[in-house]
Amino acid sequence: MEEQIMIITMKAEATQEEIQAVIKKVEEEGLAIQLNEGLEKLVISVIGDTTKIQEALFEACDGVENAEKISSTYKLTSREFHPSSTVIDVDGIKIGDGHFVTMAGPCSVESREQIIETAKIAKAGGAQFLRGGAFKPRTSPYAFQGLEEEGLKYMREAADLTGLKVITEVMDIENLPLVAKYADMLQIGARNMQNFQLLRAVGKTGMPIALKRGISGTIDEWIHAAEYIANEGNFNILFVERGIRSYETYTRNTFDLSAVPAIKKLSHFPIMVDPSHGTGRWEMIESMSLAGIAAGADALIVEIHPDPANALSDGPQSLTPENYEKMMKKVTKLTAFMKEIDE
Amino acid sequence: MEEQIMIITMKAEATQEEIQAVIKKVEEEGLAIQLNEGLEKLVISVIGDTTKIQEALFEACDGVENAEKISSTYKLTSREFHPSSTVIDVDGIKIGDGHFVTMAGPCSVESREQIIETAKIAKAGGAQFLRGGAFKPRTSPYAFQGLEEEGLKYMREAADLTGLKVITEVMDIENLPLVAKYADMLQIGARNMQNFQLLRAVGKTGMPIALKRGISGTIDEWIHAAEYIANEGNFNILFVERGIRSYETYTRNTFDLSAVPAIKKLSHFPIMVDPSHGTGRWEMIESMSLAGIAAGADALIVEIHPDPANALSDGPQSLTPENYEKMMKKVTKLTAFMKEIDE
Amino acid sequence: MEEQIMIITMKAEATQEEIQAVIKKVEEEGLAIQLNEGLEKLVISVIGDTTKIQEALFEACDGVENAEKISSTYKLTSREFHPSSTVIDVDGIKIGDGHFVTMAGPCSVESREQIIETAKIAKAGGAQFLRGGAFKPRTSPYAFQGLEEEGLKYMREAADLTGLKVITEVMDIENLPLVAKYADMLQIGARNMQNFQLLRAVGKTGMPIALKRGISGTIDEWIHAAEYIANEGNFNILFVERGIRSYETYTRNTFDLSAVPAIKKLSHFPIMVDPSHGTGRWEMIESMSLAGIAAGADALIVEIHPDPANALSDGPQSLTPENYEKMMKKVTKLTAFMKEIDE
Amino acid sequence: MEEQIMIITMKAEATQEEIQAVIKKVEEEGLAIQLNEGLEKLVISVIGDTTKIQEALFEACDGVENAEKISSTYKLTSREFHPSSTVIDVDGIKIGDGHFVTMAGPCSVESREQIIETAKIAKAGGAQFLRGGAFKPRTSPYAFQGLEEEGLKYMREAADLTGLKVITEVMDIENLPLVAKYADMLQIGARNMQNFQLLRAVGKTGMPIALKRGISGTIDEWIHAAEYIANEGNFNILFVERGIRSYETYTRNTFDLSAVPAIKKLSHFPIMVDPSHGTGRWEMIESMSLAGIAAGADALIVEIHPDPANALSDGPQSLTPENYEKMMKKVTKLTAFMKEIDE
Repeated sequence: MEEQIMIITMKAEATQEEIQAVIKKVEEEGLAIQLNEGLEKLVISVIGDTTKIQEALFEACDGVENAEKISSTYKLTSREFHPSSTVIDVDGIKIGDGHFVTMAGPCSVESREQIIETAKIAKAGGAQFLRGGAFKPRTSPYAFQGLEEEGLKYMREAADLTGLKVITEVMDIENLPLVAKYADMLQIGARNMQNFQLLRAVGKTGMPIALKRGISGTIDEWIHAAEYIANEGNFNILFVERGIRSYETYTRNTFDLSAVPAIKKLSHFPIMVDPSHGTGRWEMIESMSLAGIAAGADALIVEIHPDPANALSDGPQSLTPENYEKMMKKVTKLTAFMKEIDE
Repeated sequence: MEEQIMIITMKAEATQEEIQAVIKKVEEEGLAIQLNEGLEKLVISVIGDTTKIQEALFEACDGVENAEKISSTYKLTSREFHPSSTVIDVDGIKIGDGHFVTMAGPCSVESREQIIETAKIAKAGGAQFLRGGAFKPRTSPYAFQGLEEEGLKYMREAADLTGLKVITEVMDIENLPLVAKYADMLQIGARNMQNFQLLRAVGKTGMPIALKRGISGTIDEWIHAAEYIANEGNFNILFVERGIRSYETYTRNTFDLSAVPAIKKLSHFPIMVDPSHGTGRWEMIESMSLAGIAAGADALIVEIHPDPANALSDGPQSLTPENYEKMMKKVTKLTAFMKEIDE
Repeated sequence: MEEQIMIITMKAEATQEEIQAVIKKVEEEGLAIQLNEGLEKLVISVIGDTTKIQEALFEACDGVENAEKISSTYKLTSREFHPSSTVIDVDGIKIGDGHFVTMAGPCSVESREQIIETAKIAKAGGAQFLRGGAFKPRTSPYAFQGLEEEGLKYMREAADLTGLKVITEVMDIENLPLVAKYADMLQIGARNMQNFQLLRAVGKTGMPIALKRGISGTIDEWIHAAEYIANEGNFNILFVERGIRSYETYTRNTFDLSAVPAIKKLSHFPIMVDPSHGTGRWEMIESMSLAGIAAGADALIVEIHPDPANALSDGPQSLTPENYEKMMKKVTKLTAFMKEIDE
Repeated sequence: MEEQIMIITMKAEATQEEIQAVIKKVEEEGLAIQLNEGLEKLVISVIGDTTKIQEALFEACDGVENAEKISSTYKLTSREFHPSSTVIDVDGIKIGDGHFVTMAGPCSVESREQIIETAKIAKAGGAQFLRGGAFKPRTSPYAFQGLEEEGLKYMREAADLTGLKVITEVMDIENLPLVAKYADMLQIGARNMQNFQLLRAVGKTGMPIALKRGISGTIDEWIHAAEYIANEGNFNILFVERGIRSYETYTRNTFDLSAVPAIKKLSHFPIMVDPSHGTGRWEMIESMSLAGIAAGADALIVEIHPDPANALSDGPQSLTPENYEKMMKKVTKLTAFMKEIDE
């Protein structure tokens, strides 16, 4: 267990009674205190095992401006160390802090024709990125492993033809230089969330990284994984919620949208939602995409296929061109609307 | 395992080739077929273990209008048997099929003053129902068990004073007559989702029932629980998603918003979301409420407290009056907006 | 979250240095201390949120005899309040503290012939209890609900004929008097672990109670459920581990054998293991039964059926008479062996 | 979903009625059949989605010798393709099919003295392998990452001094040659269970591999991971059950002992149990070790430390020398006893 410090910032106008009430509350939890007189605000640091006391308990007290836990083990990724939201720039396309993007494409690149056709559909619907797998992590060594470099070339061509950016997964260090040559943004898959050597390697590239949450990764482990990337000096990190493993089998995974406010509270990096993997059911993608946007997501990634019924992989979770186009109309309207009500 | 039948409805204009393609696809799965010539549409019933074939696989085929699984074990709650969405009427207040309501109140009724004050806040914010616990299910026999009948009286008084409806939990048959006397809508708690005797008993009352999902209840078990109520002739059922138990501990529960499209696809009854229990963190309630609405929820229930820091229970997941009011402004705007984009 | 106190008992011969080292360790965790000079031993009570500090941390220190957490919310069930292991007596048959019993029978009582035949098999194999369901909790209201009173009569007759005791589930208060009339031991099913009204009611009967762990019940919730029974003055409680719900689907549930040492450490009541429900696979029952005994279980319950292939329920997890007999030979040998090596 | 074939082998003396009954049963499931007349036995292959029909259903039928599912996606690791149990040979030490070994050591190599002292304790207790981490996968980039090559040298020296074999984790391909130089057996950690590039690489070495189950790895995914190793021609694979992630927090992980009979049924490779990581609590290690042996495990790995209270990592789950010695006496007796009763 990692020790955490909770930092309670009192309002400038906080009274002595209010301050004493907070201190009393902390001591009732059997935790120690350290006071830091700020320029105009008092900061109360709570030391000890703060794992089980919730910030909410103190944020609800009079005179408290806010309460935050600072993990002693992640730093560069935490909002305490970078209070404003980070905006990633992928070759001119901004993500985060009000800049919303959509990424669309097939699970796997199957052929030059398929990816070019899909890229046109993605673009027409309003996406800025083309997604697609050239190297596929497969449970079985005998399953289709992707078109590899050929697939990367097709993606690049399709993206350039349509004016899209390329996001694709890098599975291992061996192929990192190859993938980096064709991609605009590198994706770390769920299985590799704690492949620390790979995290360090993509960190060194300085390229924008989409970091998927592990299938049973906790919020805490996920942010620590990002710390491995940031620790190499790479601050172009995009978290990706893609569903976690639970007992429920109706959906392929359990899509944890509470990860959106959680990441926004704990870290300054933007977060993208992936309802295709999150649910595994194409008929849920529209509603879960809208839900993700309403929750505050900075980006959306969906699987689309010209002919889902005959897709080599993930057919059941891919949108048809018609459903994708229909959904994107609502996505565009809702993102605009959310900006209004947040003002 | 329950056997399920999948019903594939072909479009009126489906060609013979398209029909044969679907039949071939079914046979490739090693499943048996039964054809029902409808008046103008062909219905293909797939018999056998359909648990693992997804509707999406067939809905993506040309000529298919839709594909649905019919569980042989739930009937009255399934959409096949009642294609249009059911609208519940709670003493003049409609829920479902476009009629959206909000319910707000404290976790527990603590005093006459507290519940009256909270009712006024709930009403001012725009809620139609007052929630509150008079009988509290508690893990420990020594924990505060609620004010019981006294609490029910206070709730009723507070609701009548403000023109709200009362929703409260009934924990057992023994107290059912008492709770029914004061409540407009009865809530079945997560721990009782499979308390079949209680489900039958509330079914017999004919009163509106809010059926919470069990903390590890599957979508399938949850709908079956509703079947126990419907089977007594009670069709006033409101499903409530309140978070499921997963390995993640950052949130109190894992709020499964994919339950919203799942219930809407499988059943005709409306569904409400409960982000207070779903996340256990007050700072997530606004974003998760908006997400629930965007996902298509028919109702929203939240915990509010005049003074969360000193609440007898669930303080950390209760909204302050200010945060509740702020959230409700957005809730109202978003519900209106969602109707527009759905047209 | 419930506050817990950790009680660290120092050895009589502990030195001042050793005592100071422990106190320092506690303070480093930011927790408060209270010293209780015993007759010859020093007891250090650690106050505050001890949720995350493990007893092991202190038990490993020189001079420490043992460290135990006392939940402030369960008392009668905790080992601190009753250091010696409780032995249950079911009409002359002892369970716990070295007294091992086996319970066997079908999932459901299907007919007089079936239960009598099964009782003879159970007895011949060496079981002391006949299990069987007369009232079945079923996910679907349309599934076979059991033979009810008729089934209870057959069980009683079969048990008396063979000199076995009857254990059967009571699902609700309504049928408690009826079930109590025929049974020697009442079983609370997993779905009812937190049906508090039912727990209180069976507590009042004073009869021996087998309390199954809820399908997603934590160890802590489970012991609290027992507290509801003990709080009515009923100390004839047998915990039953029957598998918990996890993401793994190969087994019906995930059989958590670590619950055996956990319960023995935290409570004084005996624990039984149920590998039939714990795994849902008959071919695993023998190995998991032996594992349970080696883990220290006080009792074993298994499902057997004269003809599993045609059982009305749970066929796949029922042993044939041959496999049951074969297993029981090993069970008998291993229980005897485990007593030896524990001496 | 991967298609599976179920192979039902009828007994030589099976009657036509018995054969027809089985075929009828299959057809009732809506599955297709293919008959293979063997030399003296009839084999019925069930084609289609067999995911949900259990072998048990057919094994319970008269005339059936056994029923097995063959996944079309793992081959070399499946028992169908290698019916007898594989025995691994680690430089003269056999594991599997009756050859039981114990591995013991600290979580991390902390110093030359610490590892030499621990090796002597491990050896004295009867272990054949020395475990210890030189490269540590850590959630945080700032946590102690191990002594690296220095640690490997110390382990090798300590092992040679005491006549033990070295097992240690290889975290990435970069360090594989280095680790391989010092180790007798390579361990793949839980986080790397699906690091396919690493699996292929250790496969190519031909060295004995201990493959830990991922923290949320299914039995099916785990066997597929082994297939990646076997597919490189390396048949020296030892599965390691080390606990899975569930909702329960009392134990660090949920120790899934049913994995032992599951692996023995589905694969021919031996399996080891790791109660230290499986439970995270030293006081449970003895009972869970004995349970693992009774369940049929081929090997046992435990964490021991000369001074757990001051261990750099995993102190709470490490045994003291005294407890280790006490446990090993029972381990030795029980392994001998289990051989007897299996005869």
